[in-house]
Amino acid sequence: MNLDFNITVIGLGLIGGSYAMALKELNPKNLWGVDIDSETIKSAEKMGIIDKGYTDAAIPLSKSDIVIVSLYPDLTVQFIKNNINNFKRGSVITDTSGIKSKVVNEVSSFLPDYVDFLGGHPMAGKESKGLAFASKDIFKNTNYILTPTEKNKVENIQLIKDIALSIGCTNIVSVDPKTHDKIIAYTSGLPHLIAIALVGCDSFNEKSKSFIGGGFRDTTRIAAINPELWSELFISNKSNVINQIEEFQNNLSVLKSAIENEDICEIEDIFNVARKKRSELNNNE
Amino acid sequence: MNLDFNITVIGLGLIGGSYAMALKELNPKNLWGVDIDSETIKSAEKMGIIDKGYTDAAIPLSKSDIVIVSLYPDLTVQFIKNNINNFKRGSVITDTSGIKSKVVNEVSSFLPDYVDFLGGHPMAGKESKGLAFASKDIFKNTNYILTPTEKNKVENIQLIKDIALSIGCTNIVSVDPKTHDKIIAYTSGLPHLIAIALVGCDSFNEKSKSFIGGGFRDTTRIAAINPELWSELFISNKSNVINQIEEFQNNLSVLKSAIENEDICEIEDIFNVARKKRSELNNNE
Repeated sequence: MNLDFNITVIGLGLIGGSYAMALKELNPKNLWGVDIDSETIKSAEKMGIIDKGYTDAAIPLSKSDIVIVSLYPDLTVQFIKNNINNFKRGSVITDTSGIKSKVVNEVSSFLPDYVDFLGGHPMAGKESKGLAFASKDIFKNTNYILTPTEKNKVENIQLIKDIALSIGCTNIVSVDPKTHDKIIAYTSGLPHLIAIALVGCDSFNEKSKSFIGGGFRDTTRIAAINPELWSELFISNKSNVINQIEEFQNNLSVLKSAIENEDICEIEDIFNVARKKRSELNNNE
Repeated sequence: MNLDFNITVIGLGLIGGSYAMALKELNPKNLWGVDIDSETIKSAEKMGIIDKGYTDAAIPLSKSDIVIVSLYPDLTVQFIKNNINNFKRGSVITDTSGIKSKVVNEVSSFLPDYVDFLGGHPMAGKESKGLAFASKDIFKNTNYILTPTEKNKVENIQLIKDIALSIGCTNIVSVDPKTHDKIIAYTSGLPHLIAIALVGCDSFNEKSKSFIGGGFRDTTRIAAINPELWSELFISNKSNVINQIEEFQNNLSVLKSAIENEDICEIEDIFNVARKKRSELNNNE
């Protein structure tokens, strides 16, 4: 795509750093980075993934057409609030945080009309945080969720969609922030909690490591979680997460009873449904 | 290794077929295959992974030094019982089934002294069954569990260990059958049930598919289960599996309460422990 804009990425961590790397490939007019850590800025400049970096956001924001905020959810809101007078008239701000109702509602409550905020959530991540693990390929073949509201300009929604496609995402979906949080509690929150509860068993010890196959490895990969980020995500999405845990626990209890009762028919029925449902995902793998 | 023996593989499915392929590379004196399906035998012969195949096991068994039974657990016991008079004096039989107490105890109860049975469990598998998905590489870098008893001859245990190493397994561990079943309920049974209960949620639908990232994919990969095999494995290992489900459910309930109470300290503590525990596995990945 023709990206003849000034763009600033706020927060050069895993996602922000990866976003900058991927944007750099699209040759934007200027690509600036903001981070509180001057060493991170130096690294990003040295790696050539931004044209210039700043610890003070005011300078690049005043000239930026597009601002991508890649911070934890509460910090995202706080950053936009603190810089409310620094954004360029007509600019579009998007974010990458994993919770949307809270972020979109809070930002909407203080954002002036001459700036557009579009909630975003690229479904990309890794078990390691920080710029050192960033990669322009992190978005390849992933889902990217947008949570537009009636306040957003159609052309700005289209612009962020085009960018998402250009950095490699294959599926851009738009839903309201509330629906995002409900679904994400299932597709992202619940698997993380499950992996953590599984690794947390006393049976995980030196001896059991010799009994581990690919299944256990895959099921627990995301147990290597970023504690600060995820505790915030879970608490911000509490009621949806609790509901999902309960549905999952009920399913597991049904399986437990079926095994206890040696009810082969019910066990095989549940297994067949699971096999069929999971196989539906394979087309995208 | 020098494999100057006649070997027969019983059951040319995913594991048996893969075992035959891997053994073929080691140039055994003769490598025979047994299957109830004559089409499978024809395929295996055509693929060159066995020297000759049989639907009647009596012929190859009488001349085989090593017999590898790759059938479901109950069928494994039944096969050995039905062929009790066909085994060569001094031969060693091993199996590949995922449950060991039942198989080892039952086989021990009727096996004559002049044949040695050593329980085995290669920690290898796939989401697809049958010879068509077999691969000689399935054992590469995997764990292989042996469950010797005082009845086994030392040289036979060593022989099966050497074979396991030669087909690519990196870690051969010996435990008693009871311990195997306890640990395997955790490292293999529980992750499968979790993946199934997760996929079984109503939230798994057309809409939520756009919200899926690598975490959900990995956590649910093994939900594409073989229903007949696994219902047997779970029922045969009932009490261990139930105990593991309960420990896991308790862990998840603790997490649920911590989120409900917005107890950031407890959440982060649990996450940090999980992160550390899971990271210990990375050296082997």
